[in-house]
Amino acid sequence: MDRRVFNQALLAGSLSGLLLPGAHAEPGQRLPGKPVIGLLVYPGVILLDLTGPLTVFNIMQADIRLIGASMAPVATDVGIAVSPSHSFETATADLDVLFVPGGLKGTVDGMNDPRTVDFVAKRGETARFVTSVCTGALLLGAAGLLKGYKATSHWYVRDLLPLMGATMVADRVVSDRNRITAGGVTAGIDFGLALAAQLTSEENAKRIQLLIEYDPQPPFAAGSPERAGVEAANAVLTQRGPLIRQAEQAARAAGSRLGVR
Amino acid sequence: MDRRVFNQALLAGSLSGLLLPGAHAEPGQRLPGKPVIGLLVYPGVILLDLTGPLTVFNIMQADIRLIGASMAPVATDVGIAVSPSHSFETATADLDVLFVPGGLKGTVDGMNDPRTVDFVAKRGETARFVTSVCTGALLLGAAGLLKGYKATSHWYVRDLLPLMGATMVADRVVSDRNRITAGGVTAGIDFGLALAAQLTSEENAKRIQLLIEYDPQPPFAAGSPERAGVEAANAVLTQRGPLIRQAEQAARAAGSRLGVR
Repeated sequence: MDRRVFNQALLAGSLSGLLLPGAHAEPGQRLPGKPVIGLLVYPGVILLDLTGPLTVFNIMQADIRLIGASMAPVATDVGIAVSPSHSFETATADLDVLFVPGGLKGTVDGMNDPRTVDFVAKRGETARFVTSVCTGALLLGAAGLLKGYKATSHWYVRDLLPLMGATMVADRVVSDRNRITAGGVTAGIDFGLALAAQLTSEENAKRIQLLIEYDPQPPFAAGSPERAGVEAANAVLTQRGPLIRQAEQAARAAGSRLGVR
Repeated sequence: MDRRVFNQALLAGSLSGLLLPGAHAEPGQRLPGKPVIGLLVYPGVILLDLTGPLTVFNIMQADIRLIGASMAPVATDVGIAVSPSHSFETATADLDVLFVPGGLKGTVDGMNDPRTVDFVAKRGETARFVTSVCTGALLLGAAGLLKGYKATSHWYVRDLLPLMGATMVADRVVSDRNRITAGGVTAGIDFGLALAAQLTSEENAKRIQLLIEYDPQPPFAAGSPERAGVEAANAVLTQRGPLIRQAEQAARAAGSRLGVR
């Protein structure tokens, strides 16, 4: 596209516009016409897992609810705390979307916490879309929400999904009926845009993609185990080994509860 | 890669590993062997601009400093506040990297604030790398740090860079000597990985890329004005018009101060 066209258009703009702050509704109040999106936040959540989709939902002007077990701020991987807007008590059952981000250690803690599993199971029952990024799928799985569904997760734990009755698919974003699960961390951006298209329109999703200039040019071909190669992938699996084994134990325990064999 | 290989490796892992929390040093204290990275945070900053690179730097175990004008938490676009670890007073001059994220309205406010411009100019003088994502380049420009350098910014404001003496390049990540500037919002991930390779090693940057599974598969071909087309780009320029014009005024004022003609 001719740069001069832009320069001219740039000088000729009208109307107003900004990335609007998220519309945090009071508990129980449903904003008319806006999809209600509940994003689970828990200690150890990976901020980028959360921020990718959240940025898309925010530009969409969704009714955004950051749901914590309590209202206490939760620590994230990068040292920025996130304050929930809702707790398990005040997050009502009218969610259009339930979204669970990842954070390996924190996800395992959630899988082993009956209160968290129960909340996710209950809200997942009534949400229009049940979604996750990264290891968040393990928590959906532990809550029984992926039994009989195709799903994916971060590449280093996605093989655990069948322990909880899911069929693992090694794709970046996997949709099966109203379940949408995505791969590790940055897959949240692809997921967010795909969901935005479903909740609003493809045209609107494309507008958001242009606003966040999502025209990725990764500096290396190293973003998947297939691209990075066996040696690099094994090094990560070795480094993450103890946590992956904890995740496996939690997945097996959940599978038992869910009658998966 | 054979999935069974993964599954086996997955069950055979050893050693420990987690995304480590950022190492926030006390003011003046320099952690030995770790690159010191100062990330500017200001009201209206786009959290995804910040979180992309921050996630990479955090896995790199850099010495991370979130620098605010004061220690007061700053609001971001998505309603999550960020608490600075350092203020303009306590952020010392030993930065290996100065990084400025974007946030159109907030960036313009920064360009028009002599204290912010002065801080960025001073720290930029001594930093090994002077870097930005999105509209953050406008603030570097207003501080005189891009005069005589090639640079880029969010596509909808990058044409303003020459007003402050820079040569605009319409690439996703632009390096010129020790200046590295990147395009809008999500370009921060590409930038962060490219910088990680320079600060540590290409092998390490690839490892981080694999950990954050950065193997993007955008759902649409709409992430740049060239891909989205004239109509879509003009709609954004129209919507953002008033803010872009404010940015242009601030850029012209800065250009005058800097003697650009």
